[in-house]
Amino acid sequence: MNITIVGLGNIGGSFALSLKENAPEHDVYAIDVNNGSLRSAEQNGIIIQGYTGPEEVLPKTDLIIFAVYPLLLESLVKKYKPHLKEGVILTDVTGIKRSIIKQIEPLLPEDADFIFGHPMAGRENRGLQYASGEVFKGANYLFTPTARNRQSNIDMLFTLVEQLGFKNISTVTPEFHDDVIGFTSQLTHVIALSLINSDDTKRNTKEYTGDSYRDLTRITNINENLWPELFVMNKDYLVEHIDQFKSQMDLLKQAIESEDIDTMQEMMIEARRRYHDLHNLELPELD
Amino acid sequence: MNITIVGLGNIGGSFALSLKENAPEHDVYAIDVNNGSLRSAEQNGIIIQGYTGPEEVLPKTDLIIFAVYPLLLESLVKKYKPHLKEGVILTDVTGIKRSIIKQIEPLLPEDADFIFGHPMAGRENRGLQYASGEVFKGANYLFTPTARNRQSNIDMLFTLVEQLGFKNISTVTPEFHDDVIGFTSQLTHVIALSLINSDDTKRNTKEYTGDSYRDLTRITNINENLWPELFVMNKDYLVEHIDQFKSQMDLLKQAIESEDIDTMQEMMIEARRRYHDLHNLELPELD
Repeated sequence: MNITIVGLGNIGGSFALSLKENAPEHDVYAIDVNNGSLRSAEQNGIIIQGYTGPEEVLPKTDLIIFAVYPLLLESLVKKYKPHLKEGVILTDVTGIKRSIIKQIEPLLPEDADFIFGHPMAGRENRGLQYASGEVFKGANYLFTPTARNRQSNIDMLFTLVEQLGFKNISTVTPEFHDDVIGFTSQLTHVIALSLINSDDTKRNTKEYTGDSYRDLTRITNINENLWPELFVMNKDYLVEHIDQFKSQMDLLKQAIESEDIDTMQEMMIEARRRYHDLHNLELPELD
Repeated sequence: MNITIVGLGNIGGSFALSLKENAPEHDVYAIDVNNGSLRSAEQNGIIIQGYTGPEEVLPKTDLIIFAVYPLLLESLVKKYKPHLKEGVILTDVTGIKRSIIKQIEPLLPEDADFIFGHPMAGRENRGLQYASGEVFKGANYLFTPTARNRQSNIDMLFTLVEQLGFKNISTVTPEFHDDVIGFTSQLTHVIALSLINSDDTKRNTKEYTGDSYRDLTRITNINENLWPELFVMNKDYLVEHIDQFKSQMDLLKQAIESEDIDTMQEMMIEARRRYHDLHNLELPELD
């Protein structure tokens, strides 16, 4: 199969690396505006050839992986449409789904099968130089098929990302995706940003931190060109999750202010139960 | 020097292990209510002998390390007072300082030198079986000397904990300690608890998490017999930090609701600057 990756940044580059290592039977190409990235990827042998436009490569491409900012996707699909191979499969890596699907599906030719997906793999640093196939190993992958998609193509993508090392590959509705990602990914970023920005810099906090502060702020090395878009496109779910989080925090704050030890203990026991469930651990008996 | 560790749990046990490995010139004893822990520590050779009471061991003890719950400290000091060696040095590991110091200092004999301290080392799991000297390596240590303390004794403790592998050993006021720990440790635990407890368990979230959710909830495997005390004893600073955090989150929430991309980007750029400062990294130029 001929695969073209659109956007050779961190995620696109990681796909190229991982395909070369784990699925070398495919021929991998790339489209990017950055000639330097393309030449470097060619020299490293992770793509066969790189292109700055769609004309030459798309007519022979069986699978297009869009690894670009969500706001770019619509204009790229419009631009690429005349060059698509009949029966092409397309997929994306965007962190929100409802609005993207609504934008893209009406633009597609009848025979083009866009199966929207979301690899949940770390990407703290930007750019091809930080790409790594390793981040996919054991990570979760969500697909959000729609009525347009063919089951055989969905199955093919499942098999491919399994080959790349993803575990827990799930099929969910676009609505469920945006709800759960709004909680596990977007809310956590909102929290981390608010925490580090609420620090009083006069304190020189870094001299006095333990692991917990470093854990809770790790994801603040954030890409400001990507995340505001994601937050806005999912604002209904995200604001709901922020409000639910704030309600829980207010309950705990009240218990602290009124020195209500029993309520705090109940909250901590519940949290510990959930921690053990999250990590598939048995809850130990404690004294 | 004869050192007696009071409380052979996770932290006390880690002191015993680390002393044996890094400062074997000292003779280490322990007091605990749990005979099993004492016998096990004797058999592993991490203490010379264990005792369930103070009478035999304290008259020969030069340094007492209290590794017990904060609410136990006052009654133990009262009980141990008749058995203290002249000129004994005492220290603790408690996560809050102002109220503890206020409770304990009036109880002490003139010649006993209690230097309050706080090793900021991880302790996710309870009990001697999880103790490890490794958690001290590279960790921060805060001492909060008062007017009663002798400089030579403070210096001795600095040297000892440096031997155990702690880095950044600082001297701060009890007020500053409680302020900064209220932020880096207590607020982060309040946030993590509120996050995991705000999950809608019907979603089966764990199938869809990336690293960020696991990072932000790691510290929810929390000891409900310890933390409510700590929160209450520091509630003035903690509530202040919760409110500052909430203000930051409200600003970000407003920006999301009003789709104010510019404000979100400014917040993210500021957060990224602080992230790089926290980790002593140079801020890269980004496109």
